[in-house]
Amino acid sequence: MIVFVNRFTVHGPLDEFERAFAETAAFFAGCPGFISHRLVRSTGDPRLYVNIAEWTDQGALRAATERPPFQEHAGRLRALASSDPQFFETVAERRP
Amino acid sequence: MIVFVNRFTVHGPLDEFERAFAETAAFFAGCPGFISHRLVRSTGDPRLYVNIAEWTDQGALRAATERPPFQEHAGRLRALASSDPQFFETVAERRP
Repeated sequence: MIVFVNRFTVHGPLDEFERAFAETAAFFAGCPGFISHRLVRSTGDPRLYVNIAEWTDQGALRAATERPPFQEHAGRLRALASSDPQFFETVAERRP
Repeated sequence: MIVFVNRFTVHGPLDEFERAFAETAAFFAGCPGFISHRLVRSTGDPRLYVNIAEWTDQGALRAATERPPFQEHAGRLRALASSDPQFFETVAERRP
């Protein structure tokens, strides 16, 4: 399992970004290898969002981004926000 | 529930950072309001870590940082890494 963290700095309208993101998330949720995601917004800076997603592996997410609908989703998001995507591995965790 | 995301850029030995972080996490886990945490490390840059923690509210985490052991933990971490802590609220999520 890998963790994909993407920081978005939104320069367009926030509600449009959230709608475009929701449609992108629905697309990803239908792709093989998707496990979960959570989109969070900074309490101090409303233009800063972070999406934290779990995928089975990096290859599964890369394959999803090669499917044709992804380019359309990515284009809409790029028009509204800059992003800083990175892959991570879990080092330690504590769950309830 | 709030999400606390802290990005660490480690300039000291990675194993020392992970040990110091584990002791800090054990301290926090014993404080009222702590729910969960996950420490992840970038697959592309081994010096970049992100801790993603859930707390009941910002006040609970702030109260934890006012307890005396926190200063000692924070001092050890500061000697090994810089950090960029931020509070977030969940906008959307999808769980398995």
